Order: sequence, then C-alpha cells, then structure tokens
Amino acid sequence: MRYELYYWPTIQGRGEYVRLALEEAGADYIDVARERGAASMMRMMETGDTPPFAPPFLKAGKLLIGQTANILLYLGARHALAPKAEAGRLWAHQLQLTVTDFVLEIHDTHHPLGPSLYYEDQISEAKKRTNEFWKDRVPKFLGYFEGLMEEGGGGFLTGRKLTYVDLSLFQIVDGLRYAFPQRMKAFERKIPKLCDLHGRVASRPRIKAYLASDRRIPFNEDGIFRHYKALDV
Amino acid sequence: MRYELYYWPTIQGRGEYVRLALEEAGADYIDVARERGAASMMRMMETGDTPPFAPPFLKAGKLLIGQTANILLYLGARHALAPKAEAGRLWAHQLQLTVTDFVLEIHDTHHPLGPSLYYEDQISEAKKRTNEFWKDRVPKFLGYFEGLMEEGGGGFLTGRKLTYVDLSLFQIVDGLRYAFPQRMKAFERKIPKLCDLHGRVASRPRIKAYLASDRRIPFNEDGIFRHYKALDV
Repeated sequence: MRYELYYWPTIQGRGEYVRLALEEAGADYIDVARERGAASMMRMMETGDTPPFAPPFLKAGKLLIGQTANILLYLGARHALAPKAEAGRLWAHQLQLTVTDFVLEIHDTHHPLGPSLYYEDQISEAKKRTNEFWKDRVPKFLGYFEGLMEEGGGGFLTGRKLTYVDLSLFQIVDGLRYAFPQRMKAFERKIPKLCDLHGRVASRPRIKAYLASDRRIPFNEDGIFRHYKALDV
Repeated sequence: MRYELYYWPTIQGRGEYVRLALEEAGADYIDVARERGAASMMRMMETGDTPPFAPPFLKAGKLLIGQTANILLYLGARHALAPKAEAGRLWAHQLQLTVTDFVLEIHDTHHPLGPSLYYEDQISEAKKRTNEFWKDRVPKFLGYFEGLMEEGGGGFLTGRKLTYVDLSLFQIVDGLRYAFPQRMKAFERKIPKLCDLHGRVASRPRIKAYLASDRRIPFNEDGIFRHYKALDV
C-alpha cells in the first residue's frame, strides 16, 4: 500500500513528524501537496465522512487519519515504531502527546496573540513569551525528557528500541537549534542525553539519506521553528 | 477494578473530560487528590517507570496513563464510549485531539504570554488574544464540529451512539457559557446542533446526577474556563 501524506508543501511544520516516521520505516509514500500542489490537499479536506480539521493527514487505503499524534499511533503499530503491548503503546503515545503540547508552545513563542495575526504585529509580545518559554517551559519539557533518558538507560526514550517519539525529539532538538541558536547553545549542557539521541537518530541510514535529500524541506520562517534574531538573545 | 484518577482537586480543568467519561460509564473510581490531597498526587508523579508530565493521569490496575486524550482512548475502548472498529476508534481520537487543541487555545485567551505568568500581568495581551479567538478561532473550531453534526445527522458527533467526544463537547459549550456569557450568547445561533448536543448530554441520567452532585467542582478562575469581565465584551 502506498500512503498518501497531505501537508503544506513548503514547510516542515507538524507534517515533519510524520515524514520522519515514514522515512525511518522505509514506507512507500507520496507527499501529495509537494507533487500535485496544495489545492489537491484542500480538495481532500472537503471530501469524505471524516474530514480533518487541519493538515497533516494520511490516506492509508480507505482510512483518512488526521492529527499528527494519531497518525503516528497508527504508523507505529504497523511499522514497528512503537512497543506492541498495550502498556508500551499507550506510554509512547502519551509521550508523543507531550511533544505535541511542547510544539504548540514553541509555535506560540512567535504567535502569542494567536495564529490569525502576523508575527510582525506581535513582536513585543513574542519577546515576552519567548523569555518565559526559555526560563520555565524549555527546562520543564526538555528536563522531563532528559530525565526519562537518564532513568531508562536504553539509548532511546522508551528503552532499547527506537520509536516515533525518538524521531520527534530529534526534530525538537534540530528545530530549537535552528530557531534559537544562541539560547540553545547555552542550554544544551543541561540535556546531554537528548543531544546524543539527536546525533544517533541523524546517523541512522534512512534518516541520514532523507536529511540529505530534497525531500527534507529546509527550515524557514513559515514553519513552527522560526529564526528571528529579536527572539534569540 | 477501581480506577484512581489523579488531578488538581479544586478545578475542573483537563481532568473534567476524564471525570465526565468515568461518570457516564458508571465506573468505579476515586478522585484521589480530592480525597487525600494534592500531595498524594505529586508523590505518584515521581514514582514508577512511566511518570506523567502533568495531571491528569489515571491508575488502572498496573497501568499509569497520562494525557487526557490518551486516557479517553483507553477508557473509550473499555466502556463502550468509542467505536470498536479501528477506523471509528481513530476517528473519535482524532476529534478528541482537535478538542485538545481548542482547549489549549481557550487557556491561552487568559494566558497569551504563557502559563508561567499571572493573568493580572498580561491583561492587555489577553484582551487582544481573546478578540482574535472569538473572531477567528471559535468560528473555525465550533464551525467544524457543528458541520460534522449536520453531516452526520445521528444526534451524536460520530453517529447514533454517544462517545467521549460528545461528553467533551458538552464541556466546551458549558465552559464557554461560563467564561464568556455575552460573547457566547451572541454566537450560539451559529451552533444550534452543538447546543442541542449540550442539552442532550446534560440530561443523561448519570451526567445529570453527576452535575447535581458535589463531585462536580464549580467553574472558577483557576481553571481553563475563567470568567473575566474584561474579556467578555
């Protein structure tokens, strides 16, 4: 079965967590809007009995699955990217939902007044929110994941096998380095295990090939992780 | 099996979506922090192999399950509060994750600069964000759910049977009425089906009994839905 991934064609965004899972799995997929344009995605959002609220969504045979963490829940079970037993499956999903919460807070650093206004209309608020974010939220979220790496000792977040959560944490570290190079450089000594994990994921053959390919869209200032000098002080 | 629900004892918050599911299911549960204090919850967060990032979390036998939508995924399968087949189960979960996104945006109306500052320190930003919220986000989110109710025609969001998503949408309507009585009053004519759903859920015997009991914590200004006159104009 060839999967159809639907996501905005010019950004990594939330779709990137799905792309990383599909790439690591070696799955056969097409990144629809990149090949056929965003209009094909918008049409798909308005058809069928289970219309998604927003991209990304995945067509898998007859299923149309929306919400990033939900897509990963589905793919994890099919491509050995999550534990099989119920307890482990729920645990990996729980961690992914915590990543989801963090991603939304990352987005809010440049959009504290909401997604419907431009960054340029909320720069001073963005500075305040970003300061709070780095003072309280980054230590809380990344400290939590670092602690789990320390406790576990298996090299991956849930043990000795890679899951989609590890791929997502790779993306978090990668994105924070892009968006906040100075702040992140100062912070990284507090999360050595997550930095190791980032390197280990990046060097996996399929991920390495993906990152070097043009399937990996470069970071830019339309995505979740945006580099604004005013926010990286 | 007696479930143990762990959540802040003085607010509805994110725990309320779980409480509503447990009540509708007629499940045997104890609301631990309300009976034994919040310290018992904090201790539980620091023990075991799968420590949750934040409340709510549910102890179900040996399982400790965190993240509201993840808990509902688990309970839905066990208490007939979600479709059994994979497609329906994923669809209900996808909708719950969209509710989750909306809940975070509701929270951000009074905390646009982040959860680590007081509301009183961000009132003018909260006014701006709340205006955007009602102009763009409420119509988008509630319009989406209203559209699904229209398309489906079964009386509940995913068809003719109640799921945990219906319980959550009851809570959304109930909370918006509490937090923004004037704004919501003007908006409700656009979501007649969701208002009907709210009434239908409220009149179910177990939910009705729950809402009349002291197990239902009143809305207040420490939770997600806060009534600030400055934001309801």
